Parts: sequence; structure tokens; C-alpha cells
Amino acid sequence: MQKVITLSMGNGGLENRELLKKFVFRHLGNSFLKDAEDGTVLGEIENLVFTTDSFTINPIFFKGGDIGKLSVAGACNDLAMMGSEPKFLSLSFIIEEGFSLRDFERILRSMKKELSVNGAVVVTGDTKVVPKGACDKIYINVSAIGNRLANFSQKNIKEGDKVLLSGDIARHGATIFASREGIELENEIESDCRSLWPIVKALIDEKIFVKALRDATRGGVAAVLNEWAKDENLCFEIEEAKVNISLEVKGICEILGFEPFVLANEGTFVCVVDRKDEKRTLEILKSFNENASIIGEVTKEYMGRVILKTEWKTRRFLDMPSGEILPRIC
Amino acid sequence: MQKVITLSMGNGGLENRELLKKFVFRHLGNSFLKDAEDGTVLGEIENLVFTTDSFTINPIFFKGGDIGKLSVAGACNDLAMMGSEPKFLSLSFIIEEGFSLRDFERILRSMKKELSVNGAVVVTGDTKVVPKGACDKIYINVSAIGNRLANFSQKNIKEGDKVLLSGDIARHGATIFASREGIELENEIESDCRSLWPIVKALIDEKIFVKALRDATRGGVAAVLNEWAKDENLCFEIEEAKVNISLEVKGICEILGFEPFVLANEGTFVCVVDRKDEKRTLEILKSFNENASIIGEVTKEYMGRVILKTEWKTRRFLDMPSGEILPRIC
Repeated sequence: MQKVITLSMGNGGLENRELLKKFVFRHLGNSFLKDAEDGTVLGEIENLVFTTDSFTINPIFFKGGDIGKLSVAGACNDLAMMGSEPKFLSLSFIIEEGFSLRDFERILRSMKKELSVNGAVVVTGDTKVVPKGACDKIYINVSAIGNRLANFSQKNIKEGDKVLLSGDIARHGATIFASREGIELENEIESDCRSLWPIVKALIDEKIFVKALRDATRGGVAAVLNEWAKDENLCFEIEEAKVNISLEVKGICEILGFEPFVLANEGTFVCVVDRKDEKRTLEILKSFNENASIIGEVTKEYMGRVILKTEWKTRRFLDMPSGEILPRIC
Repeated sequence: MQKVITLSMGNGGLENRELLKKFVFRHLGNSFLKDAEDGTVLGEIENLVFTTDSFTINPIFFKGGDIGKLSVAGACNDLAMMGSEPKFLSLSFIIEEGFSLRDFERILRSMKKELSVNGAVVVTGDTKVVPKGACDKIYINVSAIGNRLANFSQKNIKEGDKVLLSGDIARHGATIFASREGIELENEIESDCRSLWPIVKALIDEKIFVKALRDATRGGVAAVLNEWAKDENLCFEIEEAKVNISLEVKGICEILGFEPFVLANEGTFVCVVDRKDEKRTLEILKSFNENASIIGEVTKEYMGRVILKTEWKTRRFLDMPSGEILPRIC
């Protein structure tokens, strides 16, 4: 077999079957994939949650992860944010002719590892190979089916609730930026790319009444808080000093003139709980990441808006991000 | 709003929400999409079947369909081929910056129409916008969940069974080819792009014991028959004269030196039934498409192979397609 992906490997014929057998099934194989025909029979699922995500990130390998880890973690995180245990994933590749099979294998290995963190399996898939110039290296769609164990919903948020972050922010966005711009730092930063189901499971197991949970991906923490504020007609008041941001990320934001609140995260969530649960929630979050913190609370001061209380005791609105922030971050 | 898709429309922020609201939700909206957060809660599904397909077809608009119709029909057809009623679809776009919003809307309208043919709804989605040159216009992933009503499986095929086609073959492949090469024909050909669930439902309602069913997409009829022959260690004997191929398709195949058996179809299936069911099956198929026919039978003459009996009474093997046939056919 050649060392790069060829157009014939996406032809639905002989070479296509070989690619699946020698690469995809070898790394990700299981009894569902073995028996799959045009689709896969999964039988009965009780509290089904369904989500989809396409990943077009550039570069495909970055500090802290790669497109394989990101795609499995990203889709599973969407389920986790709904209180759902990730179970069954579909996997669809669009690959540029000439893509290295070694890199393809490296991506599959990452996926396998991340699947095991989530306890999920790939049960059906698709592979398209397009001519050079019709995509940039490799794009991956993961659609995922989960089993809902807890009913988190932003509709439960009310005045007086507390807002927490599961870690320091903006690492994914800053890492991708630094890598693309060739910025060299004394202390390298790493993406926060991570599967969040283990943390969510701990919250459920500890019977924390989580009201709303959202991983702060594209649009960052600013997008999550603004969406909740607008959708539920509430005000979020956030203390800037309580939001952890690493020195390296701060440095990159200064160089580039970016607000860390709008930069993407890929393994950090915002969480709203009742005031009485804030301490226990923080303890659980800190057992996974010591940078977790309580960052603010829900009020009714400016309905539909997010207020940032700065370190100098001034107050300003944190708006919904707009414009072109950073394409191909995920 | 601008008349083309901009990078900011994929930013997870304001413009992203506008694009969804003004276009996607307006055409495809339903109560599931309305309540979707990171994913969508679907509740209990009994006999769940799951499938995924990415569409990268070029050109995106062609005689008989477009990438929108194709992506909904294609994913739903995968379910139909498993005896499953299409129910819930996820929809993930990768769009090139500068893509026309009018074309985007045309695609959404096609999708809506095709969804209604299947009785399916889009319940969750994702949109990525990539810079110019990072994809060719628009790629669409559809993952789909169905409810299995009948247990078709190639494992049921046995010696003596009859093989049928639901229509004439190779129309999709020939149409895309003619369009890309700018071949002008006296009588224009049209892709067979079509949702197959209504036909499958009729077979199930009429209590036909369908053994195996497969839409002959990439790799064509040759790929389907060879896969079954190899997987189940049986021989398929096909009479070439019984396979309907339009004169226009024959013409294009002659110009290009192609075998119609390896060209893609997007709304035509191969079907295996018990000998006693062949006539009733043919009647049902003909009520949808008069070009349906009984094309051969299952034997044990050359295990794992497909034999083509030509119109001149000679016999030859029809092999699994290999090599680069026609990239971006779907």
C-alpha cells in the first residue's frame, strides 16, 4: 500500500475497503463496526441525545492535541454538557489526496485513546477522498449519541445562582494562534483540549444539581454567557479577577490585541449551580483542575447582558463576540 | 446581511446565530431544533439504526438534484437499505468563505423537500466557514437515526435467490461526468438522485421478505454484488440484457470508456429476494419505476465472484471496481 492517501481509496471499491480494514478498523474496530452494512443497528436507547460537529482545525497537530483527539473530545463534550454519557459515535472523513498515511494513523491512535476516556465506540463511518486543493489535509465529522443521565438545562438558571469555570481560559485559541503565527514563547502553552465527561460524571455522582453547563468553544466564555443571558433574559455579573488566565495566554492576547473571553477553549466549561452547591461544586472541579474557580453570579441588573467587574473596580459590558475572530480553530 | 457567507458567520458568535436563524432555522426549523442546546434530546428509540455520510460532490447543482437533495436522500437511503424508517438527522456544513447565500438557500430548500419525502427532521447541526481555498464551495455531512421496521441482512442470501434492480443504472455517475466534461447530448440525462424509503416502505407493507438491499452508490452495481459475493461466499450470475441502461448513459460510457456497472447511482438499489417473491417484488418496484427488472440469481458456481452473462451468450467475471473511478461523485 502507498504511503499517502490516494483518490482510489475513496472509490467505494477495493482500495476503499483496504484503507478501512488496514487502518480504521485496525485501530477503532469493535463488534458494531464489524457488523455494519449501510448503517449500524444499535437497538433500544432510552434517553437519547444526538449531536454533530465537523472539525476543520489548522494546524491538525498542535500542543496538547490533534484533530483526532479534538474531534472525539469535542463531540463527546457536547453530550457531556447535556448530562449525557457518550455512547455511540459516527466518524466521517474528508481527506485531501496525498495526505500522509502515517499522519492518518497518528490521528486514529489519538481518537482511540480519547474514545476510551469517554467509554464510547465508533459504530459507523464514511470516507471521502478529494483532489488536491479541494480540502486542507483532513476534515472530520463526528456525530454522537449519548444516554442522558441528568437534565441540565439553561432554563433552570435563576437569579442568585453562582457561575463557575472548570479551569483557566483561552488556552486553545491562544495555542492555535501562537502556532499559526510562529510565536515562540519561553514557556510553551498547551491547548486545554480534553474530554469533559469524567468531570460531569463526578458532578452527577455527587448529586450536584447542575443547572446549566456549556463548554466555551468558538466565541469563548463571552459567547456562552451572552447566549444564556439573552435566551433566559438574565444578567451575568462576572469578576474578572476570579477568572484564571495563564501568563502565557495573557501575553499572546496582548501581542494580538485579543480579549481572552472571546478565545476558544476545548476542554473548559462554564457551569451554573444554586448558591448552596457552589462550594461542593468547586471542590469537585478543583479535583480535576486546580484552576477551576467561582467567577460570578446571576442577577437581574441588566437583563440579557453580561457585566464584567474589572480588577480596578470598574464595570463594563462583555458583549457577544462578533466579526471574524479566528477561523479554523476547531 | 451580506449576500455571501463570511468567515464571521462561522465564529460561534453573533453572525453565526444570525445565519442559523435567518436561513437554516427558517427553512428547516422544528421544535427539536428550537430546543437544541449542545445537542438535542430525542428520548426513547426502540430499534435504532445509525449512519453517516459526507457529501463533497462537484458540481453542487446538477441535472436531477443538488448537494442538498443528495445529502438528505443519501443518508436516508442508507437507513432505508437497512429496513429503517428515517427519523432524525444531524446536519453539518463546511462552507467556503464567499459562498453565495442564494445558493445556500437553494440547497436548504432542496433539503426541506427531501426531508418531507422521508418524513424525517433535522434535529441538530453545526456550521464551519473556512477561508477561500480550504474547501470547494460547500461540503455537507448528514448523520441519521432511523427506526428499524424490518431485518434485511445480506446474511440471509442463499443459493437460488433472485436479484433485482429498482431501475436503470449508472445515471448519476454519467450525469456528473457529462456535466464536468461539458458533454452536450441530444437528450439530456438526469441523475437518478432519489429517496428510496417510499419504495422500501411499500415492500415492507406488502410483506415481501427482502433478504438484502443496497443502493448502488460509489462503485456502482459491481461493488454491491462483489461485496455480497465475497462477504457471504456466494456467486451472483447476472444477465447483462436484463439490466436497463438508457441510450444516453450508454453513449457516455462509450465516449469515456466506462463500464456502466461501476458508475454510481444515487436512487437505485439492488435487491435479493426468495425465488417465490420475485414477481410480486418486481410489480412493486415497477409501480415506482418502470425500468425495474429481475437481473439474475444467486448460485454457487464461482464462490465469491460475480458472473456477467453477456448479450452474445458469453460469460465473464464482473470484478470489484478498483482504481480512481470518479472522485467527488457524492
